[in-house]
Amino acid sequence: MELVIISIALGLVAVIYGIITSRQVLKAGDGNDRMREIAGAVQEGAQAYLKRQYTTIAIVGVVVAVIVAYFLGVISAAGFVVGALLSGVAGFIGMNISVRANVRTAAAAQSGLQQGLTVAFRAGAVTGMLVAGLALLAIAVFFWVLTGPMALDLTVQAEKREVIDALVGLAFGASLISIFARLGGGIFTKAADVGADLVGKVEAGIPEDDPRNPATIADNVGDNVGDCAGMAADLFETYVVTVGATMVLTALLITNLASDELFALMSLPLLVGGVCIVTSIIGTYLVRLGKSNNIMGALYKGFITTAVLSVPAIYLATTMALGDMNAVIGGVGIAAETAVEVGVDPASVEAVEGVAGGFTGMDLFWSMMVGLIVTGLIIWITEYYTGTGYRPVRSIAKSSETGHGTNVIQGLAISLESTALPTLVIVIGIIVTYQLAGLMGIAFAATAMLALAGMVVALDAYGPVTDNAGGIAEMAELDETVREKTDALDAVGNTTKAVTKGYAIGSAGLAALVLFSAYTADLVEFFPALDVSFSLENPYVIVGLLLGALLPYLFGAMGMTAVGRAAGDVVKDVRAQFAADSGIMAGTSRPDYARTVDLVTKAAIKEMILPSMLPVLAPIVVYFVITLVAGQANGFAALGALLLGVIISGIFVALSMTAGGGAWDNAKKYIEDGNHGGKGSEAHKAAVTGDTVGDPYKDTAGPAVNPMIKITNIVALLLLAALAS
Amino acid sequence: MELVIISIALGLVAVIYGIITSRQVLKAGDGNDRMREIAGAVQEGAQAYLKRQYTTIAIVGVVVAVIVAYFLGVISAAGFVVGALLSGVAGFIGMNISVRANVRTAAAAQSGLQQGLTVAFRAGAVTGMLVAGLALLAIAVFFWVLTGPMALDLTVQAEKREVIDALVGLAFGASLISIFARLGGGIFTKAADVGADLVGKVEAGIPEDDPRNPATIADNVGDNVGDCAGMAADLFETYVVTVGATMVLTALLITNLASDELFALMSLPLLVGGVCIVTSIIGTYLVRLGKSNNIMGALYKGFITTAVLSVPAIYLATTMALGDMNAVIGGVGIAAETAVEVGVDPASVEAVEGVAGGFTGMDLFWSMMVGLIVTGLIIWITEYYTGTGYRPVRSIAKSSETGHGTNVIQGLAISLESTALPTLVIVIGIIVTYQLAGLMGIAFAATAMLALAGMVVALDAYGPVTDNAGGIAEMAELDETVREKTDALDAVGNTTKAVTKGYAIGSAGLAALVLFSAYTADLVEFFPALDVSFSLENPYVIVGLLLGALLPYLFGAMGMTAVGRAAGDVVKDVRAQFAADSGIMAGTSRPDYARTVDLVTKAAIKEMILPSMLPVLAPIVVYFVITLVAGQANGFAALGALLLGVIISGIFVALSMTAGGGAWDNAKKYIEDGNHGGKGSEAHKAAVTGDTVGDPYKDTAGPAVNPMIKITNIVALLLLAALAS
Repeated sequence: MELVIISIALGLVAVIYGIITSRQVLKAGDGNDRMREIAGAVQEGAQAYLKRQYTTIAIVGVVVAVIVAYFLGVISAAGFVVGALLSGVAGFIGMNISVRANVRTAAAAQSGLQQGLTVAFRAGAVTGMLVAGLALLAIAVFFWVLTGPMALDLTVQAEKREVIDALVGLAFGASLISIFARLGGGIFTKAADVGADLVGKVEAGIPEDDPRNPATIADNVGDNVGDCAGMAADLFETYVVTVGATMVLTALLITNLASDELFALMSLPLLVGGVCIVTSIIGTYLVRLGKSNNIMGALYKGFITTAVLSVPAIYLATTMALGDMNAVIGGVGIAAETAVEVGVDPASVEAVEGVAGGFTGMDLFWSMMVGLIVTGLIIWITEYYTGTGYRPVRSIAKSSETGHGTNVIQGLAISLESTALPTLVIVIGIIVTYQLAGLMGIAFAATAMLALAGMVVALDAYGPVTDNAGGIAEMAELDETVREKTDALDAVGNTTKAVTKGYAIGSAGLAALVLFSAYTADLVEFFPALDVSFSLENPYVIVGLLLGALLPYLFGAMGMTAVGRAAGDVVKDVRAQFAADSGIMAGTSRPDYARTVDLVTKAAIKEMILPSMLPVLAPIVVYFVITLVAGQANGFAALGALLLGVIISGIFVALSMTAGGGAWDNAKKYIEDGNHGGKGSEAHKAAVTGDTVGDPYKDTAGPAVNPMIKITNIVALLLLAALAS
Repeated sequence: MELVIISIALGLVAVIYGIITSRQVLKAGDGNDRMREIAGAVQEGAQAYLKRQYTTIAIVGVVVAVIVAYFLGVISAAGFVVGALLSGVAGFIGMNISVRANVRTAAAAQSGLQQGLTVAFRAGAVTGMLVAGLALLAIAVFFWVLTGPMALDLTVQAEKREVIDALVGLAFGASLISIFARLGGGIFTKAADVGADLVGKVEAGIPEDDPRNPATIADNVGDNVGDCAGMAADLFETYVVTVGATMVLTALLITNLASDELFALMSLPLLVGGVCIVTSIIGTYLVRLGKSNNIMGALYKGFITTAVLSVPAIYLATTMALGDMNAVIGGVGIAAETAVEVGVDPASVEAVEGVAGGFTGMDLFWSMMVGLIVTGLIIWITEYYTGTGYRPVRSIAKSSETGHGTNVIQGLAISLESTALPTLVIVIGIIVTYQLAGLMGIAFAATAMLALAGMVVALDAYGPVTDNAGGIAEMAELDETVREKTDALDAVGNTTKAVTKGYAIGSAGLAALVLFSAYTADLVEFFPALDVSFSLENPYVIVGLLLGALLPYLFGAMGMTAVGRAAGDVVKDVRAQFAADSGIMAGTSRPDYARTVDLVTKAAIKEMILPSMLPVLAPIVVYFVITLVAGQANGFAALGALLLGVIISGIFVALSMTAGGGAWDNAKKYIEDGNHGGKGSEAHKAAVTGDTVGDPYKDTAGPAVNPMIKITNIVALLLLAALAS
């Protein structure tokens, strides 16, 4: 039990860090009156949007909570509510610190690059640590309540089932909020961005972030509700689902341990998350510009410190939980053939053992090391594909010289290509960890990846702050050197934003395997008499794979169309404002910013509902239709295949969209730095087109695929439990 | 034996039709001297390209033939050579009739729309019937030689194996040539198209197809070597592989029939192909404009006639081959449980039976009807997504009003969305045919789809002829009404081109399942002792699925990049020509068309090699690496999963690219028809960007995915045979 208590304490450390650091951020100067006024408008808009978004989600949430309670009982429903609430809190806090740090970053950038970086990164670190800390607290406290005060015994089948269902409910709550937040925020931010550009830059011929444009505040609000609140909810979800799934899989597969041993093994993911919060906090203090003024280098210093310190920290956590690192766990040397004789389910032994007999603490430790290496490689690959210093971005910039068409062609080629290396890294990660410790190896590798979430989110969340700071500098007509500094910070922000998305979808690749294993293990437990074939030779498996692979495409299409439609509404509203009051363009009267914010808010909320329901309803429809046509066994087979089809197709859709979009954005920035003709050249115009295309790719459709994958899997688990009850 | 003879005779009917109809085409007037001169240049360029392409492929082909002969014996190598040669012949004839019909279509369009349509469609019909006829002859004659003169007995295991290996070799030859032709032709046509546009329209400010542009002949050559020769080789391959795979699967799965019964069942796909050649020929005579001058309607009349007549024709063929339509074949009522007792492999019985006991001739007939319905639905869906009369194209046209960026965003959204309905149709097709007659149902549905290839290719091949005719009309400065007529014909051509690609990839979806079944059946036969798990619970299956899913992305990236690079070479060459001789732009001296053609030729040949090797080498590398890491059983499991991963991802990549590209092209045409501002408007400029982006999507990367899928599967079958020998 003390392992869980320690984890809770470490989670609280993250919260305390967040409180202290946000005070530091708030203490920084917030500029002149004009800056405060602009920041106030952004803040107001962001709060209004989140309020309406959470109100809408709350309605859906209450309905779903009642359904969960009816089919799965009150404890699962409680888990759902906790997951949903804390996911919302994570997004809310991220947005709140971000809308206060933006103006302070602009003010600090007046003093220097290091000062701007410090404020922006500290704000990001607050979001990062609170996401990781709240996620860890959510699972750890819930697990503690279930096994402590409620005294559920993990070795009693029915009570273990209650714990599992509760954890799955928690994950479902987090995921459902997160898909709404990611998609709603993504539609908001890109509808405002694209709409503002179209009506401002193209039609009215005024620069970006010009205060005369009624949509400019909405654009800045979007950075906060999409890239910050949406992202925070998404990573909260990823953390909860991954760590939760590892614990659930442990409970399902390991059937030969005594109660306290099983409890220790299930607590290990929590403890790993806890110690990595400490290493992440240490890492944040090392983010500092060197002599070369290399911003990416400064961020790398922080990440590498965290990763290196996490090695001994994870070793320590594993020793604490398991004691003897070389003792065999799982199969405990029992061959599958003889397992039946001693009363152990042979299927579970085989699944746990993977290829060899059993696994040890060292095997789990090495698996987690693989998780850290995978994280590092994905960051490095993403930087290669989206950084201005390498071939991909430069090839897009160069192709802009010959026009809009070639810019987009090269961008699409890069986005397709960018899927290759991450996929290979994930595949090698799967093979190595499976060789080490079977499915448990894969699960713990995913957990170790997520343990670094605090640091990774910190790197990401600093991006929208600098983006906003640039907007405020422009609107408040600060000195041009300030905008140059915020632009330099923002260019790196494009890469770190892409990094988080690659990291989230990469970890989803591993987590989905874990969730699928939970699905099959559940199936055996709930329907022992049913002979379900997941073999590729079963055509219903192919049917499931095809339908699953379709979901990210359809979802992506809906997201892209929604942005186009909502952006059109923005254009119409701005046109109407210009027509009604000619003083706006003359600069004598102030546009009604709030009206545009309100309009984008309504449009984003309306557009997010239908696509978000797709991954919730698809598993249910597929199961019932295939069961009707070909019997229940094939219904479950098709449903299981659907889960893997979503991840196999989703990983490519998400990776290509997020890396491609980041590359397009930075190709534009590279040209604006004076290459290929610089600002205002034909190449620049072409690069602006590419950037616009990349916007809904990287900030709406692409990142929302990650929670979509998880929801599909979790709904399947809940469906199983509901059918069995 | 007479069934095969009848099939051969019907294949010869197609060839005779081709000869007669090409004479009719050649008899049509070929315009004035200027037109003949231009057409001559195009013809010369196309022949030069194909000569060099086939020379290069021949070198690769000889090397591969030697390897096949070494590992699999002389008969398989002979099959490979026959498949490769006839695939080349199909492409060569298609190109040859097309380069002669273009100028005659332009001349005929001077008299009227119907006259232009007649010449162009007849040329398409020649290509269509020769593709279907030669493909049918290739398999039927080869099968006849093996089982007749060479007297191989299908009930003797070793001799049946020789027949199977020979048919697989034939399919491999067809596929290997086809991927080179599709990709090389695709790179040529789009490099020339994009390059000519960039340097002509954008830099020099001269219109499309202006004779002063040195790349304009290369552009027109591209239509013939890509859309015509490449497409013909591709559909030849699809036909041979699908029909061949159905025969191979029959031989592998049906183990309880007498020699002559098995022979009849194996001949049925040939006979179905034969009778549908007759119905396709009849259909070509009904392509005629009605009072409404609706071109798509005229083409539909032809297709629907063919489809309707094919219903009784296929019924007749099935009765001829099987006699009693209600007799049970396959399982013959033997339950899988008791199959062992009577000496039948229970796995094969179960696989054949699907869900019920055995299948009848009527079941096969109904499965083939499903194949026809799937074909019809895919055509209808493709028309919806690419025709100028429906929401998708119009939404892209409308979004062009707000700029390049929104045009591309909407186009990408449509391309993602366009995968949904075809996937659902294919999924329903799989379920229904599997319910009817197990795997054999799926195989015969695919065969029936391909039986209509003659008609479908005819609809497609008419497109590049009208495209060329428009170019010739422009260059020869014919009256503007001529260009209007060829443009109207060409707009429909964009849809029919997309139709063929959707049809090819849709049938590939079914054929890949058949090939995968052949792979698993082969595996059992070659390595009976090996316990290979294709279950999704095996992580090496996931690894295979992920790596397979990666291939279309990487392949697409390579294709798109190749077009960009080669188009850049074109730009440089044209710039050099303009700089060296100022008389070119003045119109006083003629540019060196041949030099540009030669340059694109070399670039396309160079660029096609590496991506084409990807699907050949990937299965071999994956098998050996996974075998090394996790043993042979997992090596085979990962390889099998790779095969399905390629199709599951490839079907979406190919569908989205081909439909999206067609929609972009026609959105431009819709605007040129006077909507949203018409030619020269800002919306038109944005639509031109979308069209350029769609070019490599729909004509290079997208269509080449189809042969790529097949090659991966066939290489796996050959690898199995080589490992076993």
